[in-house]
Amino acid sequence: MAQIAKGLEGVVVSDTALSHIDGERGRLIYSGYDIADLAHGATFEEVAHLLWLGHLPDEAELAELKAKLAGFRELPAAVVDTIRALPKTAEPMDVVRTGVSALGAAQRFSGPASVEHAMVLTASMPSIVAAFDRLRRGLEPVAPRSDLNHAGNYLYLLSGEVPSEQRTRALDTYLTLTADHGLNASTFTARVIASTLSDMGSAVVGAIGALKGPLHGGAPALVLDMLRSIGKPENAEAWLTAALDRGERLMGFGHRVYKAEDPRARVLRSLAERTSEIDFFKLAVRVEDLALKMLHERKPDRKLYTNVEFYSAAVMHGVGLPDDLFTPTFAVSRVTGWTAHVIEQLKDNRLIRPASEYVGPVGLTFVPLERRSTRAPA
Amino acid sequence: MAQIAKGLEGVVVSDTALSHIDGERGRLIYSGYDIADLAHGATFEEVAHLLWLGHLPDEAELAELKAKLAGFRELPAAVVDTIRALPKTAEPMDVVRTGVSALGAAQRFSGPASVEHAMVLTASMPSIVAAFDRLRRGLEPVAPRSDLNHAGNYLYLLSGEVPSEQRTRALDTYLTLTADHGLNASTFTARVIASTLSDMGSAVVGAIGALKGPLHGGAPALVLDMLRSIGKPENAEAWLTAALDRGERLMGFGHRVYKAEDPRARVLRSLAERTSEIDFFKLAVRVEDLALKMLHERKPDRKLYTNVEFYSAAVMHGVGLPDDLFTPTFAVSRVTGWTAHVIEQLKDNRLIRPASEYVGPVGLTFVPLERRSTRAPA
Repeated sequence: MAQIAKGLEGVVVSDTALSHIDGERGRLIYSGYDIADLAHGATFEEVAHLLWLGHLPDEAELAELKAKLAGFRELPAAVVDTIRALPKTAEPMDVVRTGVSALGAAQRFSGPASVEHAMVLTASMPSIVAAFDRLRRGLEPVAPRSDLNHAGNYLYLLSGEVPSEQRTRALDTYLTLTADHGLNASTFTARVIASTLSDMGSAVVGAIGALKGPLHGGAPALVLDMLRSIGKPENAEAWLTAALDRGERLMGFGHRVYKAEDPRARVLRSLAERTSEIDFFKLAVRVEDLALKMLHERKPDRKLYTNVEFYSAAVMHGVGLPDDLFTPTFAVSRVTGWTAHVIEQLKDNRLIRPASEYVGPVGLTFVPLERRSTRAPA
Repeated sequence: MAQIAKGLEGVVVSDTALSHIDGERGRLIYSGYDIADLAHGATFEEVAHLLWLGHLPDEAELAELKAKLAGFRELPAAVVDTIRALPKTAEPMDVVRTGVSALGAAQRFSGPASVEHAMVLTASMPSIVAAFDRLRRGLEPVAPRSDLNHAGNYLYLLSGEVPSEQRTRALDTYLTLTADHGLNASTFTARVIASTLSDMGSAVVGAIGALKGPLHGGAPALVLDMLRSIGKPENAEAWLTAALDRGERLMGFGHRVYKAEDPRARVLRSLAERTSEIDFFKLAVRVEDLALKMLHERKPDRKLYTNVEFYSAAVMHGVGLPDDLFTPTFAVSRVTGWTAHVIEQLKDNRLIRPASEYVGPVGLTFVPLERRSTRAPA
């Protein structure tokens, strides 16, 4: 019997020049640059340029990229009408998936996958998220602002007000940190879809569906639920003890790939310190410290560290996003990685089609319905 | 350096009790039954029951399944409005992807994946395809008919007329033949998405995007293009010789998994004989015979056989489907397999997250934008 690579853990499916995760040392590299340096010194647009085109832009290149992205922000009427057609109570990730799919239907991402397709998809994501958020609040969508950067325009589209420099910068850093991360499930989904020579829109739509899952990107708001449920630092020890005694998994800790601190968590912690209310930040730090200590005591063999979700929740809450837009905002960032991986996949494509091991019944004799009086054995 | 399992060819990712492809002997099994027996003696609904519940239904079980499917055929208003919002010139597969995504937004496939979710998705697919096809022709969608079976209702929704028994039976057999096929790219996409614990709607939406690709399900109409271009049997030899001399790939021949005749092709050939116009069928047979002979002469080492697409095209054309609904009709069938695989994946789930080998630059020193005067080397 063949060996089953369930979960494909450790199975190398592709080479990539986009990102490198050194899980043992807790490092993340985008195309040669340490994520900590990029988070500190580069903007989301510079990182998008790096992922799509392989190098950081100079000023002229960056200006060109920003102008193009700004030009793609306005949604086709068919996409806005699609969002209007959906129930106001829909899950935002279902709406984002549908809105991007409608964009594909309206625009036809035909011909070879291109950086321009990647830009259209990336520029449209904030518009889709914000249009739905405003419509469900009974407000009309506002027109995008070409004088704001990607993060600033996103916050503007949501609120209708130009955001503070501090909030814009915090969101920009978050978007930079989560833009790419190896062959995670959503990125792998995008590559599988692209490998059939389907279009980039289909690949991104599939990836959104994968990101929605709580084992991938669908759970950052659960960290906030936990922090709210704990309420204040002095409750943390009893709350966490009880949760662990009940065998519950603590949200925001552990990652399949990292066996050291997730480098994104470190940056996000300092970002949360600047964007969160002080009491909230103190609570988060207290919960993190205690949780790490308790997890280490209870599971000394497992290397459990704070993951990207823990302080992502604090940062997104700090910049004013409602809880159910945390995962859509993750998608607003990760679409750069998805699209860069599609472009990379198609440079040297091979249809991704694994095998399965059949373990069902064999050699059953077909009996026509009219003579099938008893149920077949299970 | 790690070995790269590009395309995952032959890599066993999962066990399955759903279908077994014996590529060497040209056999296909659904849960113990030979596809040739099922195509001859079972209906699409019986096969759906087999895939979802593990055994062929008795009469009471079949009646229950058919009643439930019929009850789920009517689309929520939000889905019809979504389809109306899209351009009439959109690619049908983009519309089907968007319509199913809107169904997910309207219905919320929340909670554990279930056979009921599978039934809602399967029952809705013909309604989505047909609603768009009628709207683009300037006609209003018609209400589904609960007195017709799945295939008959689909043809009715398209034309507004009850189809002949012969057409219904031909389409039913096609739907039966293509309902499942191991871990093909779209089914694998569905399993990857489901493995994040996302919902069944997201998994199906992703799978539709994968099926759209011409290396997977997106090309059956190209067979028809080829046959039309050849025009009549006496042109076939010169046409095929010229195409092969130009290095072109002939549509409808070869498959990654089969090294013998695809058993579905055999059934479809006899079905095409009964559904196609006689001249058209004679042309198809002549082209098949010549193509196989020429391919064997030119590539004696490769085992190239007629694949499922070749006579699928003839059958779908024969039952009156327009060319650009061939791939959506493939989706109408394969959604049973996708949903069965999602249910199976979640019985013993493990997040599907492969690894990649980083081959990009290392250790680049970050230079801030204002000092980045020259472009980095490629």
